Amino acid sequence: MAGNSFGTLFRFTTWGESHGPAIGVVVDGCPSLLDLSEADIQPWLDKRRPGQSKYTTQRQEPDQVKILSGVFEGKTTGTPVSLMIENTDQRSKDYSEIAGKFRPGHADYTYWNKYGIRDYRGGGRSSARETACRVAAGAVARKVLGSGIQVRGALVQIGPHKVDRSRWDWAEVDNNPFFCPDAQAAAEWATYLDGIRKSGSSIGAVVEVVASGVPVGLGDPLYDKLDGDLARAMMTINAVKGVEIGNGFEAATLTGEQNADEMRAGPNGEPEFLSNQAGGILGGISTGQDVVVRFAVKPTSSILTPRHTVNLDGQDTDILTKGRHDPCVGIRAVPVGEAMMACVLADHLLRHRAYTRG
Amino acid sequence: MAGNSFGTLFRFTTWGESHGPAIGVVVDGCPSLLDLSEADIQPWLDKRRPGQSKYTTQRQEPDQVKILSGVFEGKTTGTPVSLMIENTDQRSKDYSEIAGKFRPGHADYTYWNKYGIRDYRGGGRSSARETACRVAAGAVARKVLGSGIQVRGALVQIGPHKVDRSRWDWAEVDNNPFFCPDAQAAAEWATYLDGIRKSGSSIGAVVEVVASGVPVGLGDPLYDKLDGDLARAMMTINAVKGVEIGNGFEAATLTGEQNADEMRAGPNGEPEFLSNQAGGILGGISTGQDVVVRFAVKPTSSILTPRHTVNLDGQDTDILTKGRHDPCVGIRAVPVGEAMMACVLADHLLRHRAYTRG
Amino acid sequence: MAGNSFGTLFRFTTWGESHGPAIGVVVDGCPSLLDLSEADIQPWLDKRRPGQSKYTTQRQEPDQVKILSGVFEGKTTGTPVSLMIENTDQRSKDYSEIAGKFRPGHADYTYWNKYGIRDYRGGGRSSARETACRVAAGAVARKVLGSGIQVRGALVQIGPHKVDRSRWDWAEVDNNPFFCPDAQAAAEWATYLDGIRKSGSSIGAVVEVVASGVPVGLGDPLYDKLDGDLARAMMTINAVKGVEIGNGFEAATLTGEQNADEMRAGPNGEPEFLSNQAGGILGGISTGQDVVVRFAVKPTSSILTPRHTVNLDGQDTDILTKGRHDPCVGIRAVPVGEAMMACVLADHLLRHRAYTRG
Amino acid sequence: MAGNSFGTLFRFTTWGESHGPAIGVVVDGCPSLLDLSEADIQPWLDKRRPGQSKYTTQRQEPDQVKILSGVFEGKTTGTPVSLMIENTDQRSKDYSEIAGKFRPGHADYTYWNKYGIRDYRGGGRSSARETACRVAAGAVARKVLGSGIQVRGALVQIGPHKVDRSRWDWAEVDNNPFFCPDAQAAAEWATYLDGIRKSGSSIGAVVEVVASGVPVGLGDPLYDKLDGDLARAMMTINAVKGVEIGNGFEAATLTGEQNADEMRAGPNGEPEFLSNQAGGILGGISTGQDVVVRFAVKPTSSILTPRHTVNLDGQDTDILTKGRHDPCVGIRAVPVGEAMMACVLADHLLRHRAYTRG
Repeated sequence: MAGNSFGTLFRFTTWGESHGPAIGVVVDGCPSLLDLSEADIQPWLDKRRPGQSKYTTQRQEPDQVKILSGVFEGKTTGTPVSLMIENTDQRSKDYSEIAGKFRPGHADYTYWNKYGIRDYRGGGRSSARETACRVAAGAVARKVLGSGIQVRGALVQIGPHKVDRSRWDWAEVDNNPFFCPDAQAAAEWATYLDGIRKSGSSIGAVVEVVASGVPVGLGDPLYDKLDGDLARAMMTINAVKGVEIGNGFEAATLTGEQNADEMRAGPNGEPEFLSNQAGGILGGISTGQDVVVRFAVKPTSSILTPRHTVNLDGQDTDILTKGRHDPCVGIRAVPVGEAMMACVLADHLLRHRAYTRG
Repeated sequence: MAGNSFGTLFRFTTWGESHGPAIGVVVDGCPSLLDLSEADIQPWLDKRRPGQSKYTTQRQEPDQVKILSGVFEGKTTGTPVSLMIENTDQRSKDYSEIAGKFRPGHADYTYWNKYGIRDYRGGGRSSARETACRVAAGAVARKVLGSGIQVRGALVQIGPHKVDRSRWDWAEVDNNPFFCPDAQAAAEWATYLDGIRKSGSSIGAVVEVVASGVPVGLGDPLYDKLDGDLARAMMTINAVKGVEIGNGFEAATLTGEQNADEMRAGPNGEPEFLSNQAGGILGGISTGQDVVVRFAVKPTSSILTPRHTVNLDGQDTDILTKGRHDPCVGIRAVPVGEAMMACVLADHLLRHRAYTRG
Repeated sequence: MAGNSFGTLFRFTTWGESHGPAIGVVVDGCPSLLDLSEADIQPWLDKRRPGQSKYTTQRQEPDQVKILSGVFEGKTTGTPVSLMIENTDQRSKDYSEIAGKFRPGHADYTYWNKYGIRDYRGGGRSSARETACRVAAGAVARKVLGSGIQVRGALVQIGPHKVDRSRWDWAEVDNNPFFCPDAQAAAEWATYLDGIRKSGSSIGAVVEVVASGVPVGLGDPLYDKLDGDLARAMMTINAVKGVEIGNGFEAATLTGEQNADEMRAGPNGEPEFLSNQAGGILGGISTGQDVVVRFAVKPTSSILTPRHTVNLDGQDTDILTKGRHDPCVGIRAVPVGEAMMACVLADHLLRHRAYTRG
Repeated sequence: MAGNSFGTLFRFTTWGESHGPAIGVVVDGCPSLLDLSEADIQPWLDKRRPGQSKYTTQRQEPDQVKILSGVFEGKTTGTPVSLMIENTDQRSKDYSEIAGKFRPGHADYTYWNKYGIRDYRGGGRSSARETACRVAAGAVARKVLGSGIQVRGALVQIGPHKVDRSRWDWAEVDNNPFFCPDAQAAAEWATYLDGIRKSGSSIGAVVEVVASGVPVGLGDPLYDKLDGDLARAMMTINAVKGVEIGNGFEAATLTGEQNADEMRAGPNGEPEFLSNQAGGILGGISTGQDVVVRFAVKPTSSILTPRHTVNLDGQDTDILTKGRHDPCVGIRAVPVGEAMMACVLADHLLRHRAYTRG
């Protein structure tokens, strides 16, 4: 326990359950004198918000964020920024049926075992609803990063269908309900996902997050390496089963010649990399290139096909999860991945400053 | 900086450079009354030790560990366990040629940028030599875990060549220089890696680490999840570019039906899982099944083929790394991955006790 | 920054300013299955609440606590317990006059310097109002400690007037507005403090907090010693300038013979101490005796006598602080000191369990 | 456990027992490019070293420090600085007699209880010998602080005898074996302490540590306040029972008028304080004035007068501690207090830089 905080100098702590009165996050270590208002945070929450297309859960949540502390006359004061989001559309009744059973793929069994009690209403603390707090913290982190560092995410694979990188266009990401950078793939995915949705099934996906404008030097070897922190950050997102940096698992199949990012002197003699297999990180420290992270999201565990399970009395039973769910939780994981990337970078940016102001 | 510690209750801090007088690790938070002597640690160091086959660097290091504190009359006292390993075979001259150039794929450029200085002798702090300290800490962690929890690792892929899981035999792991659980694959790898080695090239690999006998309940949601900590632990190992839990990236291609680990009541009514796609972790908490982690290791960056780079004066040049290197660093990453798994589990085992001794 | 959390396993994070919409605390690491409701927390807040006698500030705050998360059907779930207290009686106008001046003894100057901005309404984050959050966290900590461990505080000195320890009676503490364990002293203090109050002045005080029923073994040498953590805990309370354990500064005047806590075998052969000069802590670990901590609280800095100061333009001026203030902030520091003691003990109780041999 | 580290960005971890082969400290988070060699550390160790006068233990320890990592060609590299000091004069036989008894005032009983085992040779981990590691870390911290920040300590009271502050002369501190800033007091103390020593008794003392040149803004409210961290730092030093900042406990006896540090505009309009009752800290943040800390050290527990105690079998017995001890451990606590002050300031200096607007 005591595991609900993330970061060292830029540190946030989240709280709240899916069906309690509210959820929230306390961002501690935010520098002072940054312009900050709800208007800076709300757009990112809206991007993650459910019920915006038929491809995400129909739960209706306005997700209105309130700043409760840390801001005075429109500027951060250097004190904790407390953000709260009220839960409005709770419909606990939807979940009453599953109170006594362990849903396969969900955290029901492990929470029940670890804590001896679980809030069975929509997963309680283990619900993806908590990711709204991460997104809110990420919006504050973006303020710390400033306009020079850009963090963008996209869905690059859904089930077996990958985007065609030759067609990659960041502008397309906001033109489809999948945050897909490839318009043609997005059209194909729509048909594919309709089938998944109508059959009451679900499907996995892969998210890619890219940070541009990252200065050289972020990351603290050997155990607070930038890639180590990013791996932890992404793996703690609900349903994530794998994380890779740069070429990731493909690196296992390459030779040293193929994998080497060679260098040449740039116009002003500064070193320039000729490729970015490493994903912008060498020895756990940013190289100044784009930082590239990908993570795999498993299919939504709540499906309409009955699955074998047991109940709290240890008896065999089956379960079929009604209620409102995302056929592909990977879609809404895009803004969450962006937020975690922003938070990790903000933390390391502050850490880096500590040692470079001699 | 201040990033050289790992863990919370079972916490280790490593120090030392590749070519300094010694390297070492301080293990803080080791419970008292555990039997511990150098003989408990040395075998694991020997397993990682270089120069044992033609497939690993020929650097000769006895890697003799010395216990400097924390043990009295053969038992741990609950005070810090300080372990030291002297560097004997340093051959700094081997590295003098590269002092002024940035080796592609190495941390030379980022360390030089971040710190304004680097110990160019064999990579200094960024050398894989530091992993000996992780292995030593892991040996202490195994004592904390006790005999009921078994942590084993294997090399499951080298370049494009994967093991055949139908031939998996843990006993084979110690019968070949690759820690390969598939005797037939090991024979094929020998030929393949000979070619790589003779051509002065290198190749990537994938390591799998499995922990058996792990109790239900380890892991502290939402940010100290067991899988989050494992991802960070593995990603901080030199040359690792990707980490996955259970079916990992494959989960992205599966439907909810395919990915669900269904349950049935066991002989005594206790829940039993019918599969382990999740890799023994649900909601960031161990399920009691095998905890399964895989990570990708990039090919050794030091190769005999010249690569483009720049020197400290910002001029174009090429570099060819002589010296003694592993054609596949993935091999020696196996005991390191085991050690990190053991340390993460030991930390969470102690954390779990804190809340279950009411 | 990022300095708004306290504790490791039992860890709380506070947020909020004196005149924002609310203040709050997130308690992370609270074990599950503890009975917890607002009714368990409110009495402690009421004890600290202002406006209850003419000896404390007349600010009227109901300090109604709301549990926003971490409790399900009356029991803690092991997830973060988020507690919120709304600010009702803010009267910002009272403070407008001081916006441009640095109040001597207050944090105005240092906050303005450190953050480049300050919420001048009643001290903002530096206001003692935040201590309500500590008291709320302390109420949760008492649940973790259980009924076997009792934490009690008292005011033992006000200005030059100390209690007579021969008349010490814990029952008296709730019979007077000073939390004074000596009825006769309380009567004398009433007259004395009336004079202070009417003259618009203020006075310092000393608080003593005692924990009974503490098991042997709490505290983690060498830097997380129980006394070290208690010293930090108390010194972070507003206006505290000194902390001592057991006989404290008096120990400086004693010989080894006088200071020794001798031992004798108890009825069952278990060691018993014949005295408690050490205040229940040896080598940073609890001895099983009462843990005794005292701390000095400086006089309220806000007084009606004009003091020299400067304004934000760097010009000389004088300041006279009107508004509603405590003539002796030491009084209301008693429940705060109790709360911090409870939190430190709860944290170390959980830490100790982690290492208790299973 | 896991309590052997101190600091966040400038963090050190100590290890080692009084009678093991060596003791040491790993300083993590030391910025790069600082000139550092053994010659920078040794003088501070020599200042603390025993056996230098008849007023301190006659144990002979050269306390030669060795730098094992973190320094390359005379400069810090930003990687962990590992420092080791070998134990040479161990004489375990001196301690064999006390193996089965609990020495009053020592940590014997609590360690035995907490860990179920103790290294009885000279206190093992609980021995003041560990403070040599703090002094070594402090020497590195001074490098981080640079020449602009000066940290000095003095003994201001021994038993009932205080220095006369009107005679305070820092230059005198190195002219007597007591680190006493008052030459006349030093002469009187010599006679007094001779009596204590010859009678086989011991006496307590008070140490004062002053830091000059500290910039405004160090300290992270509300729980990482500068005074809170200093209180913890000093309280963790062996035998310390009380800590105060500025006027400390005297503040309890003062009125608001007496305690106020008034301000006036300085020559360039910058605010200047007219007094320093606060000890250079307001609201947990440094004011730019001298930071003043005092701590009380109890008398050495090892005395030649027999004391009542019990043995491990729970039987009554008496104990008389022979061996080599300091009649007043407060003397050697002076350089230790300086070191802890330097480490706390170095940590907060780095933390402050992280948030200084670039």
